[in-house]
Amino acid sequence: MRLDLSLSATELTRAVVDIPSPSGAESTLADAVEEALTGLGGLRVDRDGDAVVARTGLGRQTRVLLAGHLDTVPVADNLPSRLVDGHLYGCGTSDMKAGVAVMLRLAAALAGSAAPAGPAGSAGVASSAWSGGFVPAHDVTWVFYDNEEVDAVRNGLRRLAANHRDWLDADLALLLEPTSGEIEAGCQGTLRVAVTVPGRRAHSARSWLGENAIHRAAPLLERLASYQPRTVTIDGCVYREGLNAVRITGGVAGNIIPDACEVLVNYRFAPDRDVTQALGHVREALDGFPVELTDSAAGALPGLTAPAAAAFVQAVGRTPVAKYGWTDVARFAALGIPALNYGPGDPNLAHTRDEHVALGLIDAAEDVLHRYLAGPAAGRGRR
Amino acid sequence: MRLDLSLSATELTRAVVDIPSPSGAESTLADAVEEALTGLGGLRVDRDGDAVVARTGLGRQTRVLLAGHLDTVPVADNLPSRLVDGHLYGCGTSDMKAGVAVMLRLAAALAGSAAPAGPAGSAGVASSAWSGGFVPAHDVTWVFYDNEEVDAVRNGLRRLAANHRDWLDADLALLLEPTSGEIEAGCQGTLRVAVTVPGRRAHSARSWLGENAIHRAAPLLERLASYQPRTVTIDGCVYREGLNAVRITGGVAGNIIPDACEVLVNYRFAPDRDVTQALGHVREALDGFPVELTDSAAGALPGLTAPAAAAFVQAVGRTPVAKYGWTDVARFAALGIPALNYGPGDPNLAHTRDEHVALGLIDAAEDVLHRYLAGPAAGRGRR
Repeated sequence: MRLDLSLSATELTRAVVDIPSPSGAESTLADAVEEALTGLGGLRVDRDGDAVVARTGLGRQTRVLLAGHLDTVPVADNLPSRLVDGHLYGCGTSDMKAGVAVMLRLAAALAGSAAPAGPAGSAGVASSAWSGGFVPAHDVTWVFYDNEEVDAVRNGLRRLAANHRDWLDADLALLLEPTSGEIEAGCQGTLRVAVTVPGRRAHSARSWLGENAIHRAAPLLERLASYQPRTVTIDGCVYREGLNAVRITGGVAGNIIPDACEVLVNYRFAPDRDVTQALGHVREALDGFPVELTDSAAGALPGLTAPAAAAFVQAVGRTPVAKYGWTDVARFAALGIPALNYGPGDPNLAHTRDEHVALGLIDAAEDVLHRYLAGPAAGRGRR
Repeated sequence: MRLDLSLSATELTRAVVDIPSPSGAESTLADAVEEALTGLGGLRVDRDGDAVVARTGLGRQTRVLLAGHLDTVPVADNLPSRLVDGHLYGCGTSDMKAGVAVMLRLAAALAGSAAPAGPAGSAGVASSAWSGGFVPAHDVTWVFYDNEEVDAVRNGLRRLAANHRDWLDADLALLLEPTSGEIEAGCQGTLRVAVTVPGRRAHSARSWLGENAIHRAAPLLERLASYQPRTVTIDGCVYREGLNAVRITGGVAGNIIPDACEVLVNYRFAPDRDVTQALGHVREALDGFPVELTDSAAGALPGLTAPAAAAFVQAVGRTPVAKYGWTDVARFAALGIPALNYGPGDPNLAHTRDEHVALGLIDAAEDVLHRYLAGPAAGRGRR
């Protein structure tokens, strides 16, 4: 499979979508991405498993990293893609192959092998430091990675951070996860605890000999139902928390008083708390019940005060909002790199059978990023 | 496999236990039982699948039916049987092959081919209407059946009632289910309802967009926890009811606010209520929640006022108690036949890996039944 980076944004998105890449099966797409980037010349292209990292080496003062995962959730009878009324339908269109296509188009534009999107038609710069493309104000790193949609242990970005920390050096990371063209800043943390309510088993015909663990879970559920979550504002972004049972299981057989009822509780917390503080809060909220941590991921502060982030916000011209879901921006935050979510896909359509993306948002995202990477002077030229 | 009915009660129980017969695999044991009963002569022996029915035809005024299932729960590494300190260990010893052995011994005693158990050594009757055995005061029917330990649709007694109702004619049915030598009268009814609490799905990072079905189950569990069950006395037997959650399930994924929580509730009710009344009571107790009946089985009144039952109680000399679990006595009750549970096994050991039976209780049960079947005159002779 080859990817032709001179295709239009729509056609390139379509080509990327039509190479199926559910988590764990990204090789074909990763090969195509690696080959296309190498073919541009002038970029250092590295590979680790099915992650591909490309970097300029222009000696700029700042480096901006664009990141996107190549994998999708399992195909749900929604490939090949279909183009209907200005929208491209298919698995991964929004999450996040439209973003991947934008990243590839930007690489081609820098190399001078693709016309920039948008009505302006050109970056407005006559000379090029590289091969005929536009002159970027920052060095740029592209990170395409595998296994984002599955267990964190398999996450390709996590692996890159462990194996090749230096490949990820940057002053700002932009994740092209679906945000419908909004800037979503930082992300909330998440942790899950298992709460096991004990009982005593007995035959249900002699229920008074037992203690019903399911009945004894009533006050726990009542506690969760009446819990008042915090709302925290950081850098103008409003983070709304939540403490929720996401699973409950109990029962041995239809004629047995159950001796255990387990409730899995998910706490989504604002990034002003770290995991330890968040767990402490959960223990306090569920005082009296045995709480066992099953998994956790720290949040990320919005980081909008970093100069590179502030410049990006200005380039986009939209007020950043809080990211509620957990994303890999938190991995960059943990590496000390400010990171924002900004992408053309629609987060509400992610993982749905009906997943699609508006073609206009793909062009708009490319235009914004193009302008931002070209820097203030070029940006003015395009307005 | 052959069963030698001249063996002692202990040895015969052991022989029956050592022919494995988990539900659905009773053929070998059923064949052996059929052959042994046919070999006695003088009995009409019929067969339907793996159920074997033997009947005397002495023209007595009353007929007593002895019933026992041949099947066991799955063998749990507890065969062959082991004899330890006056107890026989192994799968099915208590539930209910000790009872099956007693039934077979009584058939042999009537045919004169086995010495009665107990210190008296003989039924104390010199003449025999049959072939040298004791003279029964009642005609006797033996029902050995399959698939009692599994879904009701497979139950062999249910099949017999449908195919050969006349084989089951009797004035009193005695089930030799484990009761530790007590008379357990009638049985409670049982029904299960599924209660589904609805919610609205959302990502748990934006929980305010959803409605948590698990949280909304809190008042249902609270209702069950505070429910006050009835205690009902019938014919001197005390039936204690119970309304219990026996299973709870809810949850879609670790990051989703669940849109449904299902609670399975089991109502065990005294036999003064039929299923319709019992369901009405559950609907009332769980008013406000959608209740769907999943399965039910009527109870059975103790029926101790029937003359044949009263005579049996007198013969045993113990005060009957209520049966809490549901047993096949309810099938006989539904056919208009008073039925009692009375057997040598220990109900608390049924279905356990450590299942065993006290040898003394096997002899005692045989002695009681022998005396009862011989009638008042013979009974006096043995005291």
